[in-house]
Amino acid sequence: MSEEKMLEDQNLLSGVRIVLVEPSHPGNIGASARAMKNMGFGELVLVKPFSFPSPQADARAGNARDVLNSAEVVSSIDKALEDSHLIIATSARSRRIPWPNLSPKECADKVVKSFAMGERVSLVFGRESKGLTNDELQKCHFHVNIPTAVAYSSLNLGMAVQVICYEIFQALTVNDEHTSERWDIPTATASSIEHFFSHLESTLVDLDFHDPENPRQLMTRLRRLFNRVRMDQMEVNILRGFFNKINKLSKEKKKL
Amino acid sequence: MSEEKMLEDQNLLSGVRIVLVEPSHPGNIGASARAMKNMGFGELVLVKPFSFPSPQADARAGNARDVLNSAEVVSSIDKALEDSHLIIATSARSRRIPWPNLSPKECADKVVKSFAMGERVSLVFGRESKGLTNDELQKCHFHVNIPTAVAYSSLNLGMAVQVICYEIFQALTVNDEHTSERWDIPTATASSIEHFFSHLESTLVDLDFHDPENPRQLMTRLRRLFNRVRMDQMEVNILRGFFNKINKLSKEKKKL
Repeated sequence: MSEEKMLEDQNLLSGVRIVLVEPSHPGNIGASARAMKNMGFGELVLVKPFSFPSPQADARAGNARDVLNSAEVVSSIDKALEDSHLIIATSARSRRIPWPNLSPKECADKVVKSFAMGERVSLVFGRESKGLTNDELQKCHFHVNIPTAVAYSSLNLGMAVQVICYEIFQALTVNDEHTSERWDIPTATASSIEHFFSHLESTLVDLDFHDPENPRQLMTRLRRLFNRVRMDQMEVNILRGFFNKINKLSKEKKKL
Repeated sequence: MSEEKMLEDQNLLSGVRIVLVEPSHPGNIGASARAMKNMGFGELVLVKPFSFPSPQADARAGNARDVLNSAEVVSSIDKALEDSHLIIATSARSRRIPWPNLSPKECADKVVKSFAMGERVSLVFGRESKGLTNDELQKCHFHVNIPTAVAYSSLNLGMAVQVICYEIFQALTVNDEHTSERWDIPTATASSIEHFFSHLESTLVDLDFHDPENPRQLMTRLRRLFNRVRMDQMEVNILRGFFNKINKLSKEKKKL
């Protein structure tokens, strides 16, 4: 029996992935795998893990070795996210530019809705030492913050995975009939959105509206705007058609 | 300064204790201490721990070494519970004799109520291998069961402590208005958004991207997009600055 089929028989969900970015302690990878399987999740993606596979990961995984064995190892966060429709990153509070910030319960509700619509979801967890970079955070539609006591605010990585997976499992099982918003056009994937951002940026440069040498916060603000809205594919197409027109005009002008 | 005073200064709660019965892995004791402190709890009681103190416990505790250092070690569960008013045990479902069984959220609500009345609460966690005995379970007022997937129902001990403490911390702090969504810039007003749409439309006409005589659904789709996102005023300004650049370019081209 294939690994995939096995997961299915055990009723692990597919379509919701846990993405660990550069985890440094293999024990945390194992603990995350166990936490995932306890809550019904089987899809683990590791971005440049410091050490994997590893006997410590195996030991901490308990009966979730199958989740470790089928984990996907990738070389960049973009690779991990490219076919995702909804991306939520765990983050400590208080960034310079606030991003739409969810409680774990609100996060769970978003994930369940998205899942019910057949979308692919990625939940992104940062490095043990220093979390996610601003660049990485800005690739995500929402941030989720696990409330903690003032005394000690840094959760262990596996614990954070446990809490988020627990809330999603709760939300999934509490009411089986979720009323999903119906939409006419499929949501754009992360890679489609990244192409959109490249096109937007080059268009802004074309117009002398944006100087990559002195970006200030322009692209950050635009990323926040367009990530927040979760565009459908037709909206992406319309805006890129608009950019094409601008590019053409700008080329004609340069020729003259 | 005494250990106790220190905990108080860090705002760790007193009156809610975590009781671990015969934990066999010292790493789990450390992980539990960290999970407790992350959620504002400082009182740890260990019933006949297999190995304590221990370097593994210290390592996994991170900055919660103070919780380990002030942990009370006792020789029986009766000793651990003797001055408690409310006792809740974690338990896998389906015992021979059904006991009042709570979800983690219901457990949290009971704990918060009891705490608010000045009662002392004990939350009891069983052995990694086989949980609590029937005798031990029957010393408790309620049982709490953490829902899990069918595929793998046994949570790691530290993870169980994390989930229960997380739910109690949530219940304690929910009313403290930490519902996120603080934003750096005021939301744009409706009239500002209407000017934005006029400007967008005239820019699209300028570029021959949009024909008001044959609009199809272009503006409808763009309205749906930009209304859905609820732009802040700076986002509106950025996009209108972008449109101004396009307008200027288009004018220059027409002059030539």
